Amino acid sequence: MNNYEISSLLEKVRAINPLVHNITNVVVTNFTANGLLAIGASPVMAYAHEEVADMAKIAGALVLNMGTLTQKEVKSMLIAGSSANEHGVPVIFDPVGVGATPYRTETAKRILGELNISIIRGNAAEIANAAGHQWEIKGVDAGEAQGNTIELAGTVAKELGSVAVITGKQDVVSDGTLTYTINNGHPYLTKVTGAGCLLTSVIGAFSAVDKDPVKASVAALVVYGAAAEMAAEAANDKGPGTFQIEFLNSLYNITASDIEARGSFEKISK
Amino acid sequence: MNNYEISSLLEKVRAINPLVHNITNVVVTNFTANGLLAIGASPVMAYAHEEVADMAKIAGALVLNMGTLTQKEVKSMLIAGSSANEHGVPVIFDPVGVGATPYRTETAKRILGELNISIIRGNAAEIANAAGHQWEIKGVDAGEAQGNTIELAGTVAKELGSVAVITGKQDVVSDGTLTYTINNGHPYLTKVTGAGCLLTSVIGAFSAVDKDPVKASVAALVVYGAAAEMAAEAANDKGPGTFQIEFLNSLYNITASDIEARGSFEKISK
Amino acid sequence: MNNYEISSLLEKVRAINPLVHNITNVVVTNFTANGLLAIGASPVMAYAHEEVADMAKIAGALVLNMGTLTQKEVKSMLIAGSSANEHGVPVIFDPVGVGATPYRTETAKRILGELNISIIRGNAAEIANAAGHQWEIKGVDAGEAQGNTIELAGTVAKELGSVAVITGKQDVVSDGTLTYTINNGHPYLTKVTGAGCLLTSVIGAFSAVDKDPVKASVAALVVYGAAAEMAAEAANDKGPGTFQIEFLNSLYNITASDIEARGSFEKISK
Repeated sequence: MNNYEISSLLEKVRAINPLVHNITNVVVTNFTANGLLAIGASPVMAYAHEEVADMAKIAGALVLNMGTLTQKEVKSMLIAGSSANEHGVPVIFDPVGVGATPYRTETAKRILGELNISIIRGNAAEIANAAGHQWEIKGVDAGEAQGNTIELAGTVAKELGSVAVITGKQDVVSDGTLTYTINNGHPYLTKVTGAGCLLTSVIGAFSAVDKDPVKASVAALVVYGAAAEMAAEAANDKGPGTFQIEFLNSLYNITASDIEARGSFEKISK
Repeated sequence: MNNYEISSLLEKVRAINPLVHNITNVVVTNFTANGLLAIGASPVMAYAHEEVADMAKIAGALVLNMGTLTQKEVKSMLIAGSSANEHGVPVIFDPVGVGATPYRTETAKRILGELNISIIRGNAAEIANAAGHQWEIKGVDAGEAQGNTIELAGTVAKELGSVAVITGKQDVVSDGTLTYTINNGHPYLTKVTGAGCLLTSVIGAFSAVDKDPVKASVAALVVYGAAAEMAAEAANDKGPGTFQIEFLNSLYNITASDIEARGSFEKISK
Repeated sequence: MNNYEISSLLEKVRAINPLVHNITNVVVTNFTANGLLAIGASPVMAYAHEEVADMAKIAGALVLNMGTLTQKEVKSMLIAGSSANEHGVPVIFDPVGVGATPYRTETAKRILGELNISIIRGNAAEIANAAGHQWEIKGVDAGEAQGNTIELAGTVAKELGSVAVITGKQDVVSDGTLTYTINNGHPYLTKVTGAGCLLTSVIGAFSAVDKDPVKASVAALVVYGAAAEMAAEAANDKGPGTFQIEFLNSLYNITASDIEARGSFEKISK
């Protein structure tokens, strides 16, 4: 992969406007929809048991986010996920806060057990906990990195049979054999609620236009991280309010030459 | 109608601060409430079966939006709608994504069948599908305009017995006999999630201060579209993040002379 | 109390990043989470009956907001509240719109009856209605102040056995004996939806780092009000959109010297 390929995928998102079906938490719906619109995708949120199978099958990707899960929404996720699996629509899973409560842990296990998950995205604690490893978590925020996230991504990807995306100071993408690290991004992202959730949905948008989940993930992370860097420069330290708005602007405005200038990622041999 | 009448209605909204009861989707609640506050209305969101009848009857308008409908919310809409009908409170309906799934189509039909809807607002595909005509739809976004929206508005208005408002590059308002086209607005509105939903709620605010649904709709569309033009100029191509913020500013700041300078609409004889 | 103590509490929030568990309404989740992140707290929203007890007990504070209450959420509030009470986690209650419908009035009574509420925060009408006094309310906005809010706060605090926080042009904090008035704030806050709800959650963040509910409330109100003043200056009358963004910036940037320069509150002898 190189920056040119990443720009090409972004252009493909903007040309195709893939429909991304999100079953996500009530905190981030608006930001997620605006971020997806900005990057060029077509967001839809649909939750009703009566319609999620119909919506998932016409989508380019299905994103399941358990940030504010309830029993009813978990059922929606399972129905939508089965439909997506059946129709070859990639399913991206964001196990928000897994490990914080037993209910989240059980639910993540259930989703991973019943569905074929193409990509799982979380911070180190979430990815570890989702696969049954121990990693401290406080609420929905990651604890300090305690270990080797490159190793963790590879291990979890093998165990789950999904591409694992761990985000943090450095991002890691692995399918268990092939592993990339991505250095784009900005600490301000941790001051905007739903920055991780939107990223998962953007990975969904890229997955809708490229069947290779590693490629789609790396491209999404580079574009997202580069846009965050541009936004931080535009926000000029005014604060997280301004950053959030500039970030939507950057997702909309980012060009191939921005990606060429900023894209920073590496293929790790294992 | 003329620009002066439109400004007078806006002043009335700002003087009366009508209570607008919204049963709307989880993506747009915040933007809808902030937009209604900016224009001078008093938003309330209430969903519980136990209270929606009580809230609807004291409201100036009831707005029903099925963007993220569930069985429970559909029931809330029917209870609130009956109460509004009984107490002479205008009901405005936004059939988001109707046609995208069978469940949405059935639900729209049910709401239109059981309630007396004063105004229905959607893109061309939604308005066509709501009345049982065929029009392609992808998720919750309109397909390309395939036909004559002026004719469509008139036909649907007659069939449903409601004022039909079709929004797009050109907006159309029709009660089946009297038809207006409105040319205000800006393409950036399509890059902000919930811009259509907020518009429906703003039509609700104007309906609360003028019993004539055609007048209320035209006034709301002109004010909304003119505010979008002002916001686009203020945002100066920085992107959809900045536009969204400037749009809230414009809804708050727009004056009679802005409307005088920008208002662009036409009465169509049929 | 003095401005220095208030700054120290703010520093404590920023150092400890207390987990604030919110069961709040669908309109304000995003703004609440972003505001809590900006002030330095760690927000979590969790609603499922299966997990709220687990989440509440590890939180620094539990915030219950009935803005868009449903039967299911009320049950979540009662489960979470019992767990918080049992584990010594302060519970802050925002009885949004109490008095507007019988259901809200009953629900507020039930929450106040079954839980040990540390602090109740609302406008004058909400605080009066929550304690069974008459005060006119329209939707979720306060009617005009009809009486003495200082007296009201003291009376309600005694009746409910909770610290009462009444916000408006002047804010009042009382435990029934000790009473403070706070003069910080800005009218633009009334043009941003959820400004009151976020305030309640910020009081939660301060309660998590200081066991004295009067001190925590006064500190939160001064910081919040001073940040609003700074935001209004930065927004420079551009409108409520810009104000909302600048307010998040100010919550993030406000320093001890800002508080020293702006903090305006008074201890009232009774």
